[in-house]
This record gives sequence, C-alpha cells and structure tokens, in this order.
Amino acid sequence: MNFSVWSPFAQKIDLVLDSVSLPMRRTERGWWQVEAPGTLAGSRYQFRVDDKGPYPDPRSAWQPDGLHAASVVYDHSSFPWRDGAFVPRPLSDAVIYELHVGTFTPEGNYAAAANRLDHLKNLGITHVELMPISTFPGQRGWGYDGAALFAPHAAYGTPDDLKSFIQRAHSIGLAVLLDVVYNHLGPDGNYLGAFGPYFTSKVKTPWGDAINFDGEHCDAVCEFFLDNALMWLGNYHFDGLRLDAVHAIFDHSAVHILEALASRVGELSTGNSRPYVLIAESDFNSPRLVHSVTRGGFGLDAHWEDDFHHALHAFLTGETDGFHSDFGSLAQIAKALRQAYVFDGQFSDHRKRMHGRPPTHVDPSQVVVFAQNHDQTGNRALGERMSHLLEPPILKATAALVLLSPFVPMLFQGEEWGADTPFLFFTEHGDELGRLVTEGRQREFAGFHRKAKELSDPQAPETFQRSKLNWSELDDPAHQDIFDWHRNLIHLRRAIPHGTPVAVEYDELDRWLTLRRGSLIAVFNFCDGGQAIPLPPGEWHPSVPANSVFPGHSTSILTGIV
Amino acid sequence: MNFSVWSPFAQKIDLVLDSVSLPMRRTERGWWQVEAPGTLAGSRYQFRVDDKGPYPDPRSAWQPDGLHAASVVYDHSSFPWRDGAFVPRPLSDAVIYELHVGTFTPEGNYAAAANRLDHLKNLGITHVELMPISTFPGQRGWGYDGAALFAPHAAYGTPDDLKSFIQRAHSIGLAVLLDVVYNHLGPDGNYLGAFGPYFTSKVKTPWGDAINFDGEHCDAVCEFFLDNALMWLGNYHFDGLRLDAVHAIFDHSAVHILEALASRVGELSTGNSRPYVLIAESDFNSPRLVHSVTRGGFGLDAHWEDDFHHALHAFLTGETDGFHSDFGSLAQIAKALRQAYVFDGQFSDHRKRMHGRPPTHVDPSQVVVFAQNHDQTGNRALGERMSHLLEPPILKATAALVLLSPFVPMLFQGEEWGADTPFLFFTEHGDELGRLVTEGRQREFAGFHRKAKELSDPQAPETFQRSKLNWSELDDPAHQDIFDWHRNLIHLRRAIPHGTPVAVEYDELDRWLTLRRGSLIAVFNFCDGGQAIPLPPGEWHPSVPANSVFPGHSTSILTGIV
Repeated sequence: MNFSVWSPFAQKIDLVLDSVSLPMRRTERGWWQVEAPGTLAGSRYQFRVDDKGPYPDPRSAWQPDGLHAASVVYDHSSFPWRDGAFVPRPLSDAVIYELHVGTFTPEGNYAAAANRLDHLKNLGITHVELMPISTFPGQRGWGYDGAALFAPHAAYGTPDDLKSFIQRAHSIGLAVLLDVVYNHLGPDGNYLGAFGPYFTSKVKTPWGDAINFDGEHCDAVCEFFLDNALMWLGNYHFDGLRLDAVHAIFDHSAVHILEALASRVGELSTGNSRPYVLIAESDFNSPRLVHSVTRGGFGLDAHWEDDFHHALHAFLTGETDGFHSDFGSLAQIAKALRQAYVFDGQFSDHRKRMHGRPPTHVDPSQVVVFAQNHDQTGNRALGERMSHLLEPPILKATAALVLLSPFVPMLFQGEEWGADTPFLFFTEHGDELGRLVTEGRQREFAGFHRKAKELSDPQAPETFQRSKLNWSELDDPAHQDIFDWHRNLIHLRRAIPHGTPVAVEYDELDRWLTLRRGSLIAVFNFCDGGQAIPLPPGEWHPSVPANSVFPGHSTSILTGIV
Repeated sequence: MNFSVWSPFAQKIDLVLDSVSLPMRRTERGWWQVEAPGTLAGSRYQFRVDDKGPYPDPRSAWQPDGLHAASVVYDHSSFPWRDGAFVPRPLSDAVIYELHVGTFTPEGNYAAAANRLDHLKNLGITHVELMPISTFPGQRGWGYDGAALFAPHAAYGTPDDLKSFIQRAHSIGLAVLLDVVYNHLGPDGNYLGAFGPYFTSKVKTPWGDAINFDGEHCDAVCEFFLDNALMWLGNYHFDGLRLDAVHAIFDHSAVHILEALASRVGELSTGNSRPYVLIAESDFNSPRLVHSVTRGGFGLDAHWEDDFHHALHAFLTGETDGFHSDFGSLAQIAKALRQAYVFDGQFSDHRKRMHGRPPTHVDPSQVVVFAQNHDQTGNRALGERMSHLLEPPILKATAALVLLSPFVPMLFQGEEWGADTPFLFFTEHGDELGRLVTEGRQREFAGFHRKAKELSDPQAPETFQRSKLNWSELDDPAHQDIFDWHRNLIHLRRAIPHGTPVAVEYDELDRWLTLRRGSLIAVFNFCDGGQAIPLPPGEWHPSVPANSVFPGHSTSILTGIV
C-alpha cells in the first residue's frame, strides 16, 4: 500500500505504521510518500513531522478512537454496492429532510436511522440531508467542529455502516445529502497546521484564521477539500453536498474554490452518470453562487435562503429580536414566496448596511427554503421548535407556506409531527474547551432571554439526550394530525408541475394572504375571526384535508377549475 | 452654506468655521449638518468630534496647508469651463501616457505640465494619466499615500490650476485620466477613523486594516469613495479613472464596490453625455473586472495586465529575480501578444499557486499593456528605466511589441525618448515615519542588489530632484531617434483598424518573433547576427523607419500586399 501526505515545509516525515517507523520520500510540490507492501485494512498509522507528533493522517478515512488517536487503514473498494439503478429526483421535484444522526433515533446511529427511512418515504421526502458526520471532538455534537474531514464520526457507526445506510435509502428511492464544513475546522483535534499552510492569518472568520484557499501553497489545500467532496460522493455514494456557511469561505483568486468544486463534481457526475447536487448555505443574497460559469457564477445547484425563514418566523411568532428585527410583515412573506430573497438591495437595520441583489436568472429549484432547521432551533436559548412557539393552526400555516412555495422545501427532523422534544446545542469537548463553551453559551443568552436560568449546559449529557426525537409522540393523535397535514401538503405539492407560476395576494391590515399555484390556492387567515377573503375568478372547493373555510387562524387549501 | 459630515457613533459634532464654533445637528444614518449662511469660498473650517480634534473635513475640497491643517471652502461651480465640445478617443483607439506631475517638468506643477501637452499630442498620445494627486504627506511623493482624497495636492497648484490643465488638454484633443487609490489611505494625516468605521480589522492588506466596504455602516463608506470618483469626473472633467490595486479592495457583499462604481459612473456618463472610462490595476488575471454585469462581471472598461510587462522584461533584460522568475521565454511574449494573460491557470513558481483564468470574452481594448510604468521603474533599487537596461535596438523592439500589440498601450513619462533620468521612490514624511521609510527601503534592497550602496534615500530632496525629466535630452540626436521611433510606431498603429487579427510566429532557439497585424508585420531578431526569418506569403517591404532587414538585434517593420 502506498502512503502519502502533503507537507511542503517539512524536512523529514516518518510513517509510523503499527509501531514500525518508515521514512517517507519527498516527491513533488510538497508531497511525501512511502510504499508499505502488504498493509492490511485495519492497520493503524500516524505521521511524524520533523520528529514532532506522531499525528493522524489529515486524510484519514477512519478514526475509530477519536481525533487524537491513530488513523486506521480502510479499503473503500470492499463494500458490496447494489444501488446502481438508483436515480435521485431532481431538485425541482425534491423535498429535503435535515437530520442529525445522533438525535434522530434513541440509538443515535446509522443503523437505527436506516430503520426510520420508511417513515420519511411515507412522508414524501425525496432527499435526506445528514448534518456533518466528519469526526468531531467527543461522542456527541452537532458536527460543525469536525477535524478529521475524511473520516465518518465513529459514534454513529463504521464507514461500512454509513454505506449501508445510504444503500438502504437508495433502495427505497431516497437520495442522501451530506452537510460538509469547508469554512473552518474545529478547534480541537485539528492537526492540519502541523503539516502545512492550511490556514491564513490574513482573513479572520468567526472561528479564527480562514482556510488558505488563495495564498501561497493553496493548490494542495484546495485539493484537500475538493478530494473530500469527491470522496463522499464517489466512495460513499452520497447524492450531493450541503456546503456550510459559504460566506465564510474566502478565495480571491481567479477561480473561486466553489467554482472549482462545482466543476470537479460535474466531471465526477458525468463520469459516474449520477446527478450529484451542491447546495450552499449562503448569507449573500446573491445569485452568483447558482449562476452558470458562463454567466459569471460558480455553477452550484442551489443555495439556502434564510430570508424566507426570517419572514415567516418574525410574522408568525411576533419575535423581533436579533435578525428578526428586519422582518415581521405579510408583505415580506409575499415577497419571500415570490422570489425567496426579501433583501435584494434594501437597507437592513440589523446588518446596518444594504444587503443583497435581485435573484435574476434564478430558478425556484435553485433555492432551498424552510421554516425550521438545526440552527434556527438549536441556536435559541431553549432549543424551541416552531411547535413550541405556535398553536397548531399557525404551525399548519407555516408548513403550507413552505411546502406549497415554488422553492425546494426542507423540513427539520421532527418538524413533520410537531415534535415536543427540543433541539439544543450540545457538545462534548475536553475540560478546558468545554468550560469555555458552557460559559460562552451562558454569556450569549444572559440578560436578554427571560428564561436564561433554564438554559441547558451544552456539555451536559442530558442536553444531548433531551434533544433526541421521541418517536412515541407519533402515537398521539394531535401529533399524527400534524404529520398527516405535512404528508398531505407534500402530496398536493407533487401535483403542481414545476414552473407553475406563483400568485400571491395579501392584506397587511386584515391579515390574510393567498398563495396560488395553478389550480390550487392556499388561503391563510391570520385574523382572530373568520373573514371574507377574495379569491381569483373560478370555482374553488376545499381540498384535502377538508376543513371549514376562512375561520380565524386557519389555512384553507382549495382546488379550482378556472 | 450647508456643512455636513458623517459620523455615526459621535454624540456631538461642532463645526469650527473661521474660529467660530457651531454645533451640528444629527440628521439620518449618522450624518450631521449645520447651515452657515454667507460662508465665502476661502473660509477655513474643521470638525470637532465629541470635543476631540478639530480635524479637517474627510471630504475637504482643498487643503492648501497640508493634511493636518484646516480645510478650505472651495466653490466648484465658479470655473469657466469651455471644453463642452471635447470628445475623448475610445480605448480601442487610445495610447495612454502615465505622468507624475511633480517630476514631469522641472517646476513640477500643473501649469508647467500643461506646457508640455503639445509634445504628447505630437507623439500621438490620446490619454494622459496622472499619478495620484489627492493630498498626501509632505510636498513630494508618488501620491499613493493620499489621505485627503477629495483635495488635489497643493504643491501641484490650486484646484483651478488643475481644471485649467485639463481644459488645456481637452482643447488640443487629449483626454485626461486620474489614478485613484481606493484600497487604503496613507498612514499619515488619515483622520477618517476619528469620524467613523471606515476600516475593518477583519481583513489585512499590505497597508494594514482594509477599508470597510461590506461590514456594518459600510454604505456611507462606499458612498465616500463613489462620490470621490464622481467628483473627479464631474467637477474636474477628468475623462476616466485608473483604480489602484483593486486586488486589495475586499468586498464580499452581493454588489461589489467596483460594480457599484461602474454603475454610478455609467449614470454620470449618460447624464453628462461624456464617455468616462474606468481602468483597474489588477493582479487577478481574471476577466470578471471587465465583463458586463449581465455576464457576472463588474463592468469596468479595462484592466492593466502585468503579465505582458513581465514577459517582455524578463526575456529582454534576462533578469529572473522576484516575479520575473515565472517568465523569460519568447513563447510567453507570443502568448502575451495574443491574449495579454500569460498565466491563465498555470502554476506560478513565484506565487506558489495556480494563477489566473483565460481571458474569455475580453476585447483587446479592455486590456492596458506597457513595458514600463512608475512601479516597474521606481520599485527598482536604482529606479532604472528600460533605457538604462537595454541597448537602443532592443529598446526599440520593446516599443514595437507594446505599440503594435492589439491592446491599449501605455508609455511612462520619458519612455518616448529613452530618458537618462531615473524614476526613484521619493517621499517627504515626518521624522519618525520618514526614518521608517528610509530604513525599510534599505532593508528591502540590502543583500541581494549588488549596487545597494548607491541606493537613494526616499526622504532626501535630491532623490525627488533626480527623478525629474530632463527635457534638454530631446536635443540629443540619440534621444530624438528614440522619440521618432515611438512617434512612427504610434503612427503605424493608427493605420491598423481595431479588431485586426494578431498573428504571432516565433522560434525560441533561433530567437526571432514576427508579429503581424493585417498588412503590417514587425520582425524581431533577437540573435547576435542576421538570419533568415520566414514571412507569410506576399510581398513585404520595409516600412518607416526604413532600416536594414533582419540583422542582429533588430526590429524590422514591413508592410505588405497579400
């Protein structure tokens, strides 16, 4: 077996393989390699850099004993794939479901999650999106502090378990997306700096030095992340990636790393005849991410649009703190339903600057929208879901606004039945870092949140336990009713051909809004009492689920012949 | 008269006008104003911010006593403009001449420079480009340390003197461009920070904190620079701007400041029916700068391309230090002649990374090329021009490569006669900063330059004096011969219609290159002796200036019937 590692400034690198030390040979552009014939899968190895370390392999495929331990040789070619016939639905036809492997089931692993895939299929989901699974510190965590980016987190199962999960999803027609973090590495267990200039002090991100995507020696750094993407797609058969916070990725070179990524994934897509998708979490409100390269864009497939969430959340909950201060009107919900971007050049009081540009030449299938996600839930002091904040009728309105919008809807685990469990921020850092995380959380929510004393300690095991979904809630008729509502809406959504125009009417004072998609109209009455709400010409009849039309705080779904 | 200033965090601002203090009133978005009826042009004023200062106006139009003194009221409407009929030549037809007002003439001011405009007209220049003239520290300097960006440097003359210079240029058909620095302010006399968040510590440039083009309160910062551009164009009748080092301008918002600038200047252009141009100095090797907004670009008119210079310089001088290490072959000169960008995605040893992308959809009129400029001369230890480094025949070849290229050629003051005077780095900073500049220069060139002991002190007055052009050199037949060569080449260039294809042939071993533009061919023999050089089919005859054909180290210009 051939071992290789990039370390452009090292004078000497040794491979420590099952306690035997082998000097590596410098090849070109900072790469080192050594041949170790007969190495078996399961062998443990590390690298010693200029007699320092040993450190795990930056590209380790498997870290069963955590970030600080030896890397383990894993053979990607041995898994018996049988998903060759699977074809994912296009994004124009997609309903995404974001899940966190550790809390989606009581067991918190791939095998248990696989047993719940039928539930998602039944709901009408087309794409399952896993929160980050690259090895992160401790056993439990959201995953955004990953530091061994090529190795799936051992607490969730083995690499083969992950492949089995994906194969199971494919076997019932579900695509699987993976959330990857290419804007920073976690502060604990990150040994990249020992190998080379992966970071630059020229730009500061919220997490410290930015990744070196455009400075000296950046080519190998770019390849590290490009190869990581190709590894998840090619070796694990993920159907696409969700790119965390691309606004914290800084690359001023002529070819932006995201453009290079889209290009490289496009080549793999062609080679493997699989339509991989790349979806960016973006705070830019700019179509450049999804514009084609010909149009000067990066050529990604879609991007998240938080404005849609903010517009819904602020109006429906009445909350006006933080970023919600920019939102709160029905007019903004109407704008969000028409073009997703609410800010397309206006001054934002929260940002204290003008924000965004119009989403010209952006197809609705290129924008992912949601009423909840891990951040909007878990970054609240008490991890409250919309189901904790809203009465069921308004919760149903929320679902209809998301699921009947022209954009790609995404649900967050448990949203489909209005789960009672919170989704909290949880970590398992070592003593020192753990104390900082706990204190930081207390500081963040001190003073301005009236329930701050109930604040959970991210480090406490029960914070993780409390965040796990309670599947027995589905036996409760009230939760089942919410689930049926979501399933029905997804069913209705399927009947709307992609490209069907969106017509939105609303009255800010009378608090109603109508969302029409062809022969279907959703009528939202946010008033306390019933009121007459004007409909377009034609005959309109209550659709599934049948309910009384236009009473207070109601959502009526009508179908019509026009 | 209405005085206004932006200072979003101030609690109190006072206008100090001719020693009378007037409290200002907070209006909206951080602006303050006060009416001072009857204020006459020439009145002196400053602002006191929260009882600190007083400081000069960030937008002062006139700082006759330097950066640290009071601002002076100046009335832009009083100048008797008579240039309404002037129409600048388009960039496709342009030959630019870069000049530094302080050293272009012995007197070093606008009035003296105006008296040399006929020389430039006679040479065939269409656009004069002034190195930065915003008020900078001391009397002498290159101008890139400007700190009062709206006030022309007093050592060169009054605002009206500058307008008279531009009017004089326009009267003989010459356009005037201005070099503006929007990537940093000079370290001395920069009071912007006392008024508001003009800078951000999130990004570091070679000059310190970057300008805040995309953070909180950035809108007013952007307006400051946009208004500066519009001021030079609208009030001073400059025909365009050269934007210094745009690769050090960082803006991650949806509308980049350069796109906003192009848009705003475009509106002024339409309003005034004058075709203003924006030319970026760029290290990106990316066409995004000049692509239209529809194509995802910023919509600038042109950008400088250093690769063209480097290819010529490295091959012709044989120098291979610093950035020249990436260059040195005839093949690169050929590529530079064909598409200006030599690096369009290749690995650069000097940059230690891949660099650039192909210049797709870039018209040759969108790229400015040169064999010399202020940087390439003045940033050398001894300020040597190409005329100090090359024998006259090779100097002539250099001129032909630039002036017969399909791109927009630019000459640096004195280049047209192969001036003997150097162009050195000179400054007049205060004691402490001046010492640092002197020492920094010594350190920069210590050790690796064999003539380091001859290094000029940037602070010494004679360094500035030695950099002034010596116009009496034009009486010397050898210099006059170089001048005639340049004038003839520009004349020949005029006869080549824009869009005429470029055909380049070369032989790396035999050291010849031919550059054909329609019925004209330039044959460059870089060998010691004469040699047969293949010409395209047709009849080719020596053109002006007649010379022997294909001897060693020669440039033969032939015209043909084909």
